[in-house]
Amino acid sequence: MTKVHNYSAGPCILPQEVLKQASEAVINFNNLNLSILEISHRSKDFIEVMDNAIALVKELLNVPSGYSVLFLQGGASLGFYISAINVMKKDGKGAYLDTGVWSAKAIKEAKRLGSVEVIASSKDKNYNSIPKSFEVPGDADYLHYTSNNTIYGTQFKTVPQSSIPLICDMSSDIFSKEIDVSKYDMIYAGAQKNMGPAGTTLYIVKDELLGKTGRDIPSMLDLQVHIEKESMFNTPPVYPIYVSMLNLQWLKKNGGVKWIEGINNQKAELLYAEIDRNPLFKGIVEKEDRSNMNVTFVLTDESKSEAFDAAWKAANISGIKGHRSAGGYRASMYNALPLESVQALVDVMQAFEKTNG
Amino acid sequence: MTKVHNYSAGPCILPQEVLKQASEAVINFNNLNLSILEISHRSKDFIEVMDNAIALVKELLNVPSGYSVLFLQGGASLGFYISAINVMKKDGKGAYLDTGVWSAKAIKEAKRLGSVEVIASSKDKNYNSIPKSFEVPGDADYLHYTSNNTIYGTQFKTVPQSSIPLICDMSSDIFSKEIDVSKYDMIYAGAQKNMGPAGTTLYIVKDELLGKTGRDIPSMLDLQVHIEKESMFNTPPVYPIYVSMLNLQWLKKNGGVKWIEGINNQKAELLYAEIDRNPLFKGIVEKEDRSNMNVTFVLTDESKSEAFDAAWKAANISGIKGHRSAGGYRASMYNALPLESVQALVDVMQAFEKTNG
Ligand SMILES: Cc1ncc(COP(=O)(O)O)c(C=O)c1O
Ligand SMILES: Cc1ncc(COP(=O)(O)O)c(C=O)c1O
Ligand SMILES: [Mg+2]
Ligand SMILES: [Mg+2]
Ligand SMILES: [Mg+2]
Ligand SMILES: [Mg+2]
Repeated sequence: MTKVHNYSAGPCILPQEVLKQASEAVINFNNLNLSILEISHRSKDFIEVMDNAIALVKELLNVPSGYSVLFLQGGASLGFYISAINVMKKDGKGAYLDTGVWSAKAIKEAKRLGSVEVIASSKDKNYNSIPKSFEVPGDADYLHYTSNNTIYGTQFKTVPQSSIPLICDMSSDIFSKEIDVSKYDMIYAGAQKNMGPAGTTLYIVKDELLGKTGRDIPSMLDLQVHIEKESMFNTPPVYPIYVSMLNLQWLKKNGGVKWIEGINNQKAELLYAEIDRNPLFKGIVEKEDRSNMNVTFVLTDESKSEAFDAAWKAANISGIKGHRSAGGYRASMYNALPLESVQALVDVMQAFEKTNG
Repeated sequence: MTKVHNYSAGPCILPQEVLKQASEAVINFNNLNLSILEISHRSKDFIEVMDNAIALVKELLNVPSGYSVLFLQGGASLGFYISAINVMKKDGKGAYLDTGVWSAKAIKEAKRLGSVEVIASSKDKNYNSIPKSFEVPGDADYLHYTSNNTIYGTQFKTVPQSSIPLICDMSSDIFSKEIDVSKYDMIYAGAQKNMGPAGTTLYIVKDELLGKTGRDIPSMLDLQVHIEKESMFNTPPVYPIYVSMLNLQWLKKNGGVKWIEGINNQKAELLYAEIDRNPLFKGIVEKEDRSNMNVTFVLTDESKSEAFDAAWKAANISGIKGHRSAGGYRASMYNALPLESVQALVDVMQAFEKTNG
């Protein structure tokens, strides 16, 4: 097979060996002579998958005791509402940092439930940076932020200081670098970047955060219900959880989050260095806020875009067209994207400079 | 491989040829040299999958114009709440038929939103039958029922007469027999019986039913939002939808819902005839309400259960232990379960009669 350099922004590249195991289990899972797709979620074999997946999250991220790990459905988009309804008190308030499209959507869903205070926003600069100075209101029930802004290519390099419970949508950088879970009260993330395929959503939640809103919460949106039922209140998304488990096993076997963080740093340095060096390209976000996951850039001369597009396509690179809200290019470099794929893109940029510079 | 007779109640057996295609696509989808798990849901190739899946539902069930078909997340359990919040007016009312655990759960979630009238229930008879006489209140916003009661093994043989909009949880018998969609205003169903693997939920909804509640509905629970975005408001559960599409292609190729209905009738007749004939077994629900999908029965002499369990296990039969709420045995005979698997169970019952009668 021709090697595709898969820069998809999510769902995104997964390790070949994970895909191989994932493919085999669709035919014969655990030597049961049954497919992973056709066994009961209450079978011993699937309960083991769920338990393993949860244990791997806890181990890889050093989740302290007092936190629960859940694999649910609905994507991070349902997480916007779930995080708010589980934590914002009746007549309470949520504080938000607005750093991109996803933050804005989280804000929109929270507003349905009560008062929302946007304490800082980079919207007026087309989200090209991370706000550094803001005051966290002591009377809000929580502070919510988006750790990595998938569309614009900015990333928090430090965890916001907060005296109130901290909630983070970590969809696009979870498992890409070490984090200190104890600083958070809730983390949620759609699986389809560094965890696995689309179809499940991870929640890491401090148990004592919950049950304090005075709200009546629908069962499927109630994190306490899911904690009590160990993510089996209803039929879980079996296959997305299974493949996430395989992918987390792969991460652990290779050295865990610390190991991948080193590689992710190398990849980011390589590509950003070329963007800066090469007169034909420039980055679009503040350097100090650059994302290691989603590298956004533009041509200095837009009229060359057709030629550049032809060049990277010829090199079997896929998925670097920028999101429709941001334009330009976006190279998403999630965990499974190898350094050689980044080198392939850099090579294209350098060759392009020679012929079009 | 030893053939397993897979009677799992859901997630459940899928056709071997579907599993084969599903397995291959995890390695190389559409000859893209990419896995179905690692492509963008906004790629041309996946949009085609989504479009095909929707078209197959429309074709197989003869969905009239004016209805939308959606593939969402959350399972039928989120469907309990979604159906109510999208249709029950503020200060309105929902009418419910209570025919089992799943109906009761639907009722519980609807009560969070307003008034609920349970117009008939078979609960006092441990849900062993389908209520036949009930009056549908003209002032309710809708009537909700569960077409097939997966746990107890009862099934509606006719569509309830209703002068108000009719909503049906069809999780465990959709695609098993012909239905007249025009009688319904909303149908919803978890995929993991006759449609595909766990992880997506089908909605078939009459467009004009929606937008009349006066409620503010969270985006991810708002069927109008999903209709407008063609099930792509957020990242859909790519693989469960893909495998559902393959499975619906399989159904169409073989003759569609009419074809499978004939086979399902044969399977049900074979097993119920043996239950009735064999003095060691008896059914637990009213004969006229017996489900063609989930056949529940008990031993006439419970002390023989250990011996019977050993006998069916020895015959490579799996998954016929009854649900914890109902006890006894439950043979789930979804579309992909072949007649020969039913014959294998009947053979075990007959041999058991010879040795233990
Ligand atoms: C940071 C972030 N939050 C939320 C979402 C929405 O996730 P989902 O599509 O799973 O609802 C995305 C999707 O890319 C994202 O990148
Ligand atoms: C009739 C019926 N409704 C609802 C459900 C719940 O579905 P889910 O687990 O997808 O939420 C089931 C599950 O078996 C069912 O059989
Ligand atoms: Mg963004
Ligand atoms: Mg430059
Ligand atoms: Mg039931
Ligand atoms: Mg009998």
